[in-house]
Amino acid sequence: MAGTRDDDAAWHAYARAVGTELHRRRIEAGLTQETLAHLAGMTRSHYRVLETGGSATSPANPTLRAMSRLAAALGIDVQDLLPTTGR
Amino acid sequence: MAGTRDDDAAWHAYARAVGTELHRRRIEAGLTQETLAHLAGMTRSHYRVLETGGSATSPANPTLRAMSRLAAALGIDVQDLLPTTGR
Repeated sequence: MAGTRDDDAAWHAYARAVGTELHRRRIEAGLTQETLAHLAGMTRSHYRVLETGGSATSPANPTLRAMSRLAAALGIDVQDLLPTTGR
Repeated sequence: MAGTRDDDAAWHAYARAVGTELHRRRIEAGLTQETLAHLAGMTRSHYRVLETGGSATSPANPTLRAMSRLAAALGIDVQDLLPTTGR
């Protein structure tokens, strides 16, 4: 159920996986954190939280529109940044 | 660039497409809006905004975690709820 400790830990793991893929795609596109953050209309510090996945007590939780802007700046779809859970 | 009127209109179209897919998957799973909202830990009124895509002046913009909970409740991945832009 939503909001349990397991759910929080699972979400933090998901957020870290999104951050890892975001980092990989950014390096592949040859962009600095500063440039990608600017292109996506967010501050560099906000971007950095997304790329690290945030902390266990405050995991990253971007809006779908922020993800969409990042994907557009990288020339990919939002899906390309998301891990598959194999459901 | 982020925040232009075109960008707002494009985002509203994307949010409506997500809502359409969310509706389709909910019906396919035989769930009411009430039940799916509860399983995803949100209010029914919040869920309804997501399913309609919100309005032009206030388009829906769910967090990735809310999308993840909805996908889990539907037994699918977040990707399955997102339109492909063909980038």
